Amino acid sequence: MTGSVKSDLTDYLEKTYPQTRDELFDFLRIPSVSAKSEHNSDTAKAAEWVRSSLETAGLKAQVFPTPGHPIVIGEWRGAEGAPTVLVYGHYDVQPAEPLDLWTSPPFEPTVRNGNIYARGSVDDKGQLFLHIKALQAHLATRGKLPVNVVVIAEGEEEIGSDNLEHFVEEKKDLLAAEAVVISDSAMFAPGQPSILSSLRGLAYFELIVEGPTVDLHSGAYGGAVVNPAMALARILATMHDEKGHVMIEGFYDSVREWKPEVLAGMRKLPFDSETFRKETGAPTLGGEKGYTVLEQLWARPTLEVNGLLSGYIGEGAKTVLPSKAMAKVSCRLVPDQSPQEIEKLILAHVQKVAPKGVNTSVRFLHGGKPWRAELNGPLYDAARRALATAFEKPPVVVGEGGSIPVVGDFERILGAPVLLVGFGLPGENAHAPDEWMSEENFRIGMRAIAAFWDEYGVASKSC
Amino acid sequence: MTGSVKSDLTDYLEKTYPQTRDELFDFLRIPSVSAKSEHNSDTAKAAEWVRSSLETAGLKAQVFPTPGHPIVIGEWRGAEGAPTVLVYGHYDVQPAEPLDLWTSPPFEPTVRNGNIYARGSVDDKGQLFLHIKALQAHLATRGKLPVNVVVIAEGEEEIGSDNLEHFVEEKKDLLAAEAVVISDSAMFAPGQPSILSSLRGLAYFELIVEGPTVDLHSGAYGGAVVNPAMALARILATMHDEKGHVMIEGFYDSVREWKPEVLAGMRKLPFDSETFRKETGAPTLGGEKGYTVLEQLWARPTLEVNGLLSGYIGEGAKTVLPSKAMAKVSCRLVPDQSPQEIEKLILAHVQKVAPKGVNTSVRFLHGGKPWRAELNGPLYDAARRALATAFEKPPVVVGEGGSIPVVGDFERILGAPVLLVGFGLPGENAHAPDEWMSEENFRIGMRAIAAFWDEYGVASKSC
Repeated sequence: MTGSVKSDLTDYLEKTYPQTRDELFDFLRIPSVSAKSEHNSDTAKAAEWVRSSLETAGLKAQVFPTPGHPIVIGEWRGAEGAPTVLVYGHYDVQPAEPLDLWTSPPFEPTVRNGNIYARGSVDDKGQLFLHIKALQAHLATRGKLPVNVVVIAEGEEEIGSDNLEHFVEEKKDLLAAEAVVISDSAMFAPGQPSILSSLRGLAYFELIVEGPTVDLHSGAYGGAVVNPAMALARILATMHDEKGHVMIEGFYDSVREWKPEVLAGMRKLPFDSETFRKETGAPTLGGEKGYTVLEQLWARPTLEVNGLLSGYIGEGAKTVLPSKAMAKVSCRLVPDQSPQEIEKLILAHVQKVAPKGVNTSVRFLHGGKPWRAELNGPLYDAARRALATAFEKPPVVVGEGGSIPVVGDFERILGAPVLLVGFGLPGENAHAPDEWMSEENFRIGMRAIAAFWDEYGVASKSC
Repeated sequence: MTGSVKSDLTDYLEKTYPQTRDELFDFLRIPSVSAKSEHNSDTAKAAEWVRSSLETAGLKAQVFPTPGHPIVIGEWRGAEGAPTVLVYGHYDVQPAEPLDLWTSPPFEPTVRNGNIYARGSVDDKGQLFLHIKALQAHLATRGKLPVNVVVIAEGEEEIGSDNLEHFVEEKKDLLAAEAVVISDSAMFAPGQPSILSSLRGLAYFELIVEGPTVDLHSGAYGGAVVNPAMALARILATMHDEKGHVMIEGFYDSVREWKPEVLAGMRKLPFDSETFRKETGAPTLGGEKGYTVLEQLWARPTLEVNGLLSGYIGEGAKTVLPSKAMAKVSCRLVPDQSPQEIEKLILAHVQKVAPKGVNTSVRFLHGGKPWRAELNGPLYDAARRALATAFEKPPVVVGEGGSIPVVGDFERILGAPVLLVGFGLPGENAHAPDEWMSEENFRIGMRAIAAFWDEYGVASKSC
């Protein structure tokens, strides 16, 4: 099944690499921080930069304004009768702060130990750009692609993709595709290509416990008035048992079993939990008993306290009996749990366990559905072959504990399966100082995606 | 046992009342806010004002500097062979903020419905000044007092009396007394004179639970890393049972039984728990089962959460797994619990219940011993008689849920019993906007204290 990437593509990518690298560095120099309005001209500049590089690659490209940052679309539709694939990426980046923790300036790309250090190097400019260059390799060497391709690059991924869903709905015809490809994730380990098979969903709540009208003197009132902070602690404590199981009634009812071969594959991954523990700094690992760490992270739902606030939090001693207490609580969900279902269960649980003497309320803040790939069909077959060819090693299937809401949106609106294949690496500091992308991964990534188009052209014809 | 206040004293107090009232208002106009350094000249001015009014009353008075605000001492030692009584009060006041909630300006005394509204009216300028005027009534009409009297007025009561203990230690000879009298508390109800028989102590802690080195992404790590905020909630929840009992092992071991007659007296007090509940705004009252509200507040120790802080507390949803969580926890103590003993018990408890996967630490922040009066001897006999005479109703014995650390200091350093007899009223807003003191209580208070000196002169001779 493994072969080699076609030499015309490889040759082109190698020959043009010095130029490609210069261009990538130009892209990385644009501080397109979507969260900060003082960078609005930079995000606009980055959008125009992407448009221009799509044109250079041989696609027809334009910038669409949105109420927020613009969306760039590139199209090549020369493969009549062939399927269309949508490639998604984003040109915006996280804020670079704290700046003093960067070894080299965040917007001055610098290579150290084979890694390109810059804000956005791996998330997601490098991964978006390797897609553009893989397309260019095809169009420059052969004048065509085996399938039709639409590239969509947004500028609001780091601030919640607020305008994307509406844009996709509105431009459903322009974006219509048989498959979606996204490179915005990491490989399991260096040299180990990986296909991301699952994302957890989210249900995020604010839990408020209210007692007296104002903070009371804990001497004058303490002992007769129920303490909202203690009541909150008692409510939260009922949500887990000592084995880390979530004790919300019905919480696990919709959890769908994993395919045994996917679970078996996860268990075979060379994962070192001690390295993982050290990375977190936690004294020991914990979590739900009876599951491996990777299962806990990828295959099991959670309930976490994200924040606590009540009463006096300054220095020293202030003797208040707080009038209220707040907890941010969120659940990571797995198929087929839904945020709406979990909201109902949490509400019912809080009503059941809330002590007398306080009023409780639960406010739903944010939700997203979990996602799991079917891992079959021409899209996945092509990805497996292309990755095995480029990396000279078959890909593994991995999960992801976090959420990427656009994945579900694309599947729902376009009715097309999504392939998540990323070229980042563990420890890449995607949202932290000293973000980096392996330069080797960037180069092999271009070859892998170039090969993917060949493989997908074949695979999609055969079905 | 009840009689009437001697008419020479009453006549003098009545005759001079317009002048007395003007002087009180002058005193209340000085914004002697000890917490704010911009008021340092005002606290100095208030100290000098007290010194001068002690001199006017016929005492020898001087102002002693301290590292903080000055202490004023007045002395009259003309009763050779008779005991000496120390009268304590404070001339500093709480900050007046929020100013917009005052009906009339905080430092412009205004009478409405028979109450004098001003910051410091009841806490404690009005109560200190009525002592000075009662002394003046004796010295002006008779040229003498039946006992020797030392008045001590400090300017740091509202900020923790940091310099008082050291001052009392150092000036032990100057302050040597057979009894101490303090008027800085409230009566149980209008027209109902009250003797304060107990204060709760305090043991205040900060409990820290630490897990990962930094806040983690709750998607990428949630499920495998123990959540410090959830661990904290679980630890706190073990500290109470559902009946409001404190579940720290040994917590109640040192609780001394109350005298049955004192408990019986408490139970007979006309206390309306629904009025109390409405005042707090809590949906229902709670606390330790098996005790009345007044027992819960005065006779039983507590464990309260005073503050909670962990992770993300801003608006909306941020998916962090917090690196640490903090709770402020304090216990109100009753005799013979001690802050040191409670500290040991809390430490042992936290160590016992802390889950794996986090590190816990407990930091002792502040403590104070509980206090209970013996309620007998010439001091209390005199107080009972004087209050009954002035108010035409025998006093009741009440407790106080809060702490006044100087009480224990005086008893310990001077070896003298303390009498707490106050003329405030429930709802007096001592630390809130619209602080007030009943003008009638101010006037009867002067008569009661004037009568007290006569009664104590007799009672102390007879023993």
